[in-house]
Amino acid sequence: MDRRPIGVFDSGLGGLTAVRELSRLLPGEEIIYFGDTGRVPYGSRSRETITKYARQDVAFLRTFDLKAIVIACGTVSTTALEVLAAENPIPVLGVVAPAAEEAAALTRNGKIGLIGTQASIRTGAYERQIARLAPDAAVSALACPLFVPLVENGRFRPGDKVAEMVAAEYLTPLKEAGVDTLVLGCTHYPLLSAVIGDFMGSGVKLVNTGAACARQVARQMEADGTLAGADGPGVRRYFVSDSVDDFSRLASIFLGEDVAGEVAQVDITIY
Amino acid sequence: MDRRPIGVFDSGLGGLTAVRELSRLLPGEEIIYFGDTGRVPYGSRSRETITKYARQDVAFLRTFDLKAIVIACGTVSTTALEVLAAENPIPVLGVVAPAAEEAAALTRNGKIGLIGTQASIRTGAYERQIARLAPDAAVSALACPLFVPLVENGRFRPGDKVAEMVAAEYLTPLKEAGVDTLVLGCTHYPLLSAVIGDFMGSGVKLVNTGAACARQVARQMEADGTLAGADGPGVRRYFVSDSVDDFSRLASIFLGEDVAGEVAQVDITIY
Repeated sequence: MDRRPIGVFDSGLGGLTAVRELSRLLPGEEIIYFGDTGRVPYGSRSRETITKYARQDVAFLRTFDLKAIVIACGTVSTTALEVLAAENPIPVLGVVAPAAEEAAALTRNGKIGLIGTQASIRTGAYERQIARLAPDAAVSALACPLFVPLVENGRFRPGDKVAEMVAAEYLTPLKEAGVDTLVLGCTHYPLLSAVIGDFMGSGVKLVNTGAACARQVARQMEADGTLAGADGPGVRRYFVSDSVDDFSRLASIFLGEDVAGEVAQVDITIY
Repeated sequence: MDRRPIGVFDSGLGGLTAVRELSRLLPGEEIIYFGDTGRVPYGSRSRETITKYARQDVAFLRTFDLKAIVIACGTVSTTALEVLAAENPIPVLGVVAPAAEEAAALTRNGKIGLIGTQASIRTGAYERQIARLAPDAAVSALACPLFVPLVENGRFRPGDKVAEMVAAEYLTPLKEAGVDTLVLGCTHYPLLSAVIGDFMGSGVKLVNTGAACARQVARQMEADGTLAGADGPGVRRYFVSDSVDDFSRLASIFLGEDVAGEVAQVDITIY
């Protein structure tokens, strides 16, 4: 048993899709979330800048006595996981390995699609993980740079003509490639699940990277005997780098429920 | 005569549309540009964060001995011009007053449209300036939050179906309001001029805020006798807060010509 909190961070609010699943699986865990809303998005920035920002995010979270850190961000997981894991004495878990495992287990025809930010796709991190687990699988990867701005602007519901047109444009090559499994390699993308699913068709399974990561965290903590062992609900604390105004309204969309817990602003540049 | 350089800054590369016009009008001036590419966009952030970032941008530029600072950013001009002008002993010029003057002079039917980022529109700064110059004018203002991501992703040319659909959606209320003049209140938007102009029709005049600001700078320096008095071409130096990779390719789109001059990265958070 380990009652210390789990730290979770993302470039913005997309990582709350992982918090949502963690809360469902492990309601007794205390969770401290940091969203870098003052510098979102990360996916269009350089590797060097993403690494610098991610180090600051982790340094802030580690001002708390944590038992693990979850990188609930596809861009940071693909770009800086090794660096962060090497620099920190507690487990640092990203979304790539759990998502690759789910995709390799789900595919029947060996054709896997992968979408993410420009930064994520250029690393090739998901493809390398999938190749290890399913050497015969063919991975079709592509960047969808307008998906994050669409989600951040609330444009993700079926019936939103712009979201549907952008999805159709991006996803047509993956549909034509005949993928039967599609990795949503960015924690913002699950909000577009209905739009993406409608276009790809019911035969294509979607892998929610934030949820896959949360499930792996739960399994690993159970195996390690580091669960909090409390019935919950565990304390939730949320920190952001821009103003807290509007946080609760936007966050509730990602969490799927009202925000319950402290919300505070932090100057991330001092870490 | 004053041979000191002019400092110009923007959240990203949109402000280069002002540099383009400054270079055309005043080829002999030395220009130092800063684009905060590590933290772009500003238009969706809080007033407090925009002001903090803008102060750092100005503090960096003032490490050079400048004769004036041009805020080539609609979001900063509407949100933080007064603060920056009060804090600095050299002229600090924004895009709001020059664009309002052009709009007031251009309109024939007194119906003026205004588009900008969420942060710009919520300040009401353009409306107040226009109301001073043309008290009878009716201003229809609206935020176009997807325009900056579209431009930053190169989606601004006629024939781009997504850009055309988004423009039609945003601009329909302004077209229905019968505006004859439309202020492009963000320095990214001139790249969308053809798409916007095609939708609004040839009877609607578009005000390019970066260019209007450059023309006012030129007039004011001529009146004050502070032009460099050189034939040019003046030195150009470009600084960005993210990696310089790709800068030249992207910047040339905004400048309308190849980048000629030093390009360097700066850690903006230390200012």
